[in-house]
Amino acid sequence: MPVKTDKLRITVQRLGTRLEELGELGAIAGGGVCRLALSAEDGAGRDLVMRWMRELGLSVSIDGIGNVVGVRAGLEAGPPVMTGSHIDTVRTGGRFDGNLGVLAGLEVIQTLNDAGILTRRPLAVAFFTNEEGARFNPDMMGSLVYVGGLALNAALATVGIDGASVGDCLNRIGYAGPAPCGKPEVHAYVELHVEQGPVLEAEGITIGAVEGVQGISWTEFTVLGVSNHAGTTPMRLRHDAGYVACAIANKAREIAREMGGNQVATVGAINLSPNLVNVIAYKAVFTVDLRNTDEAALQIAEQRLHSFASEVAGAEGVTLTNRRLARFEPVDFDPSTISLVEATARQLGLSVKRMPSGAGHDAQMLARVCPTAMIFVPSAGGISHNVKEFTCPADLEAGANVLLHTLLQLAS
Amino acid sequence: MPVKTDKLRITVQRLGTRLEELGELGAIAGGGVCRLALSAEDGAGRDLVMRWMRELGLSVSIDGIGNVVGVRAGLEAGPPVMTGSHIDTVRTGGRFDGNLGVLAGLEVIQTLNDAGILTRRPLAVAFFTNEEGARFNPDMMGSLVYVGGLALNAALATVGIDGASVGDCLNRIGYAGPAPCGKPEVHAYVELHVEQGPVLEAEGITIGAVEGVQGISWTEFTVLGVSNHAGTTPMRLRHDAGYVACAIANKAREIAREMGGNQVATVGAINLSPNLVNVIAYKAVFTVDLRNTDEAALQIAEQRLHSFASEVAGAEGVTLTNRRLARFEPVDFDPSTISLVEATARQLGLSVKRMPSGAGHDAQMLARVCPTAMIFVPSAGGISHNVKEFTCPADLEAGANVLLHTLLQLAS
Repeated sequence: MPVKTDKLRITVQRLGTRLEELGELGAIAGGGVCRLALSAEDGAGRDLVMRWMRELGLSVSIDGIGNVVGVRAGLEAGPPVMTGSHIDTVRTGGRFDGNLGVLAGLEVIQTLNDAGILTRRPLAVAFFTNEEGARFNPDMMGSLVYVGGLALNAALATVGIDGASVGDCLNRIGYAGPAPCGKPEVHAYVELHVEQGPVLEAEGITIGAVEGVQGISWTEFTVLGVSNHAGTTPMRLRHDAGYVACAIANKAREIAREMGGNQVATVGAINLSPNLVNVIAYKAVFTVDLRNTDEAALQIAEQRLHSFASEVAGAEGVTLTNRRLARFEPVDFDPSTISLVEATARQLGLSVKRMPSGAGHDAQMLARVCPTAMIFVPSAGGISHNVKEFTCPADLEAGANVLLHTLLQLAS
Repeated sequence: MPVKTDKLRITVQRLGTRLEELGELGAIAGGGVCRLALSAEDGAGRDLVMRWMRELGLSVSIDGIGNVVGVRAGLEAGPPVMTGSHIDTVRTGGRFDGNLGVLAGLEVIQTLNDAGILTRRPLAVAFFTNEEGARFNPDMMGSLVYVGGLALNAALATVGIDGASVGDCLNRIGYAGPAPCGKPEVHAYVELHVEQGPVLEAEGITIGAVEGVQGISWTEFTVLGVSNHAGTTPMRLRHDAGYVACAIANKAREIAREMGGNQVATVGAINLSPNLVNVIAYKAVFTVDLRNTDEAALQIAEQRLHSFASEVAGAEGVTLTNRRLARFEPVDFDPSTISLVEATARQLGLSVKRMPSGAGHDAQMLARVCPTAMIFVPSAGGISHNVKEFTCPADLEAGANVLLHTLLQLAS
């Protein structure tokens, strides 16, 4: 069979048509989509994708948290090779984030169906509930429950930003399914996703072989100094909370530059009080977002930042406190699966680079229970979570073909 | 007569009583005062001070902009030696800012009256309209009109934050006077004022011999970059408006530190958009307040700041624009009058230091037309424009005695 499948290719027009059709459900101005998890729009999207799954002959199950898995039997029984993603979106989302991974999975199934090819292992296409976390916390909820990281009852009891619970919403749209969570067990998982960043486009590369998901460290700092007159207070007598905030923000950039590699640092929010041109700020509240694919390196970045923060606060005579807003360790994908994605892309004549994911994905949950990797395709302008999100047909085609042949290898 | 006045001293209890009494008009919670320029409360304050002036035998005139001058005849005719300040306050002001200079002037007059001393030149005590600028722009309006820097009609037409014009408000409180603006001409002007900064208290010094008023340069910068995902965007591909703002803020501090002297720099206001922990800011609007007593040095500070700002903006690939919010050149007071203040303080056994004023004062306007200097006394905690503004009686007494003997010298 490997010989026969070498020339097999997906049909991008068909994939594009499904993306368009799904994108019409919850469509918003500007070409975007609002399909918040477990909303009526999400329910309509689920119904459509379930119909497609059944039309393709998949055996579809819905579990207690609303994850949907469609299985295509293989020559042998056993755990399927799975692909998938999510179809919920943020409030002003695009048509590709998540949807691509699910619909490319269906396109792979249809390609195999049309060619009459049966794989040794079963294949599965899944979509997981509430990946975005835009309505319910935490994000990646469905895949987290799937791998046993969150109890089903706890997930069902979660109340969203609009006061509704996950359990009630699942019942309302008819997606509180009977299947046990975490079934079927998975032999391997590969997810195709848009990059949501600018790297592939900037470097002119078509395929990202994703090595893992960055660890995340979010800290909110509060600096308390003394407000005083900007004219009458000599520099040596100042306790300037605003200056300390800016000095730490600068240090965050310096740490990222000096450490290099996959270390990134962002100060996205700064709030000064009283925030007036001629008054030294008595208070500054600001956030630092540090990420790295390497946990040890991320800890070094945190230590360097906190050490500098204490030092500059002491020198300025201000008090400094901080609280951790979020902390996740990096996730490493499976080396041989990453290598398979990379080799598959090369065999298809596509440019490819290994890269980390800066955003979270369902794949990082599946990585807890099976060999996992991801395939990235370029995001135009690096834009995502935005109605302007776009990936060109040639890149969609390339990514889906890499998915097809990676799944074929894993299932053979 | 000089022999006879050596031991002459003001009576601080009397000065304190007048400060209390005037502070009751427009009193607000916490011991502060709200007597916005030309408000009913300001009118009541004016009536009280005018009554005191008349009780002390002064010949009182009110000019077209509401400046009030009380003259005490000398042995000879001619331009008086003037002291004074203002009695309007900011919305949440203290009892000392401005009021001290006016009431210490009255205390000097009363001390001379009680001792039966007549100076060679006439003496005058003035209070000028709308020094604070908290209701009408510009601040120091009355003294600016007095020295011919602003036409009376233009000043009268000024509309305040509440929609009322200066002219209408003057009429309403009965202070559109018949005296010509700028009369009498002034032989010399010395103003006693609270420091409004922390320097004297921090250094344990009682008297500041003010050498001049800092020049002020206010700039608002707007940085336009590109919002992107804090996780998926490598450092090298960022156009981070927030980073550029913080880098320029840090540079402002560095410039002040490196230039030393009287150079100060403050970034008091920063506003990022969208101001979220995990989104690189696409926009930053922030202010830089630079001040120096030396115009050439202030220009160097501005040039260094703008040069760095262009450089960092170019390196980050963001666009940078700026607009000037305010620009005033420094004012130098009269060297011999400054020396006289300093020598007088020493003769009274008081610690004294030469220092700049970081805030604006009526004296900087009078400096355009006559030899001028100022006397500072400590502000507790450096606090001003605040209900907690406070100067202890011993310092009030010291300042008023320096004023007394400086005026005696100038009038002899």
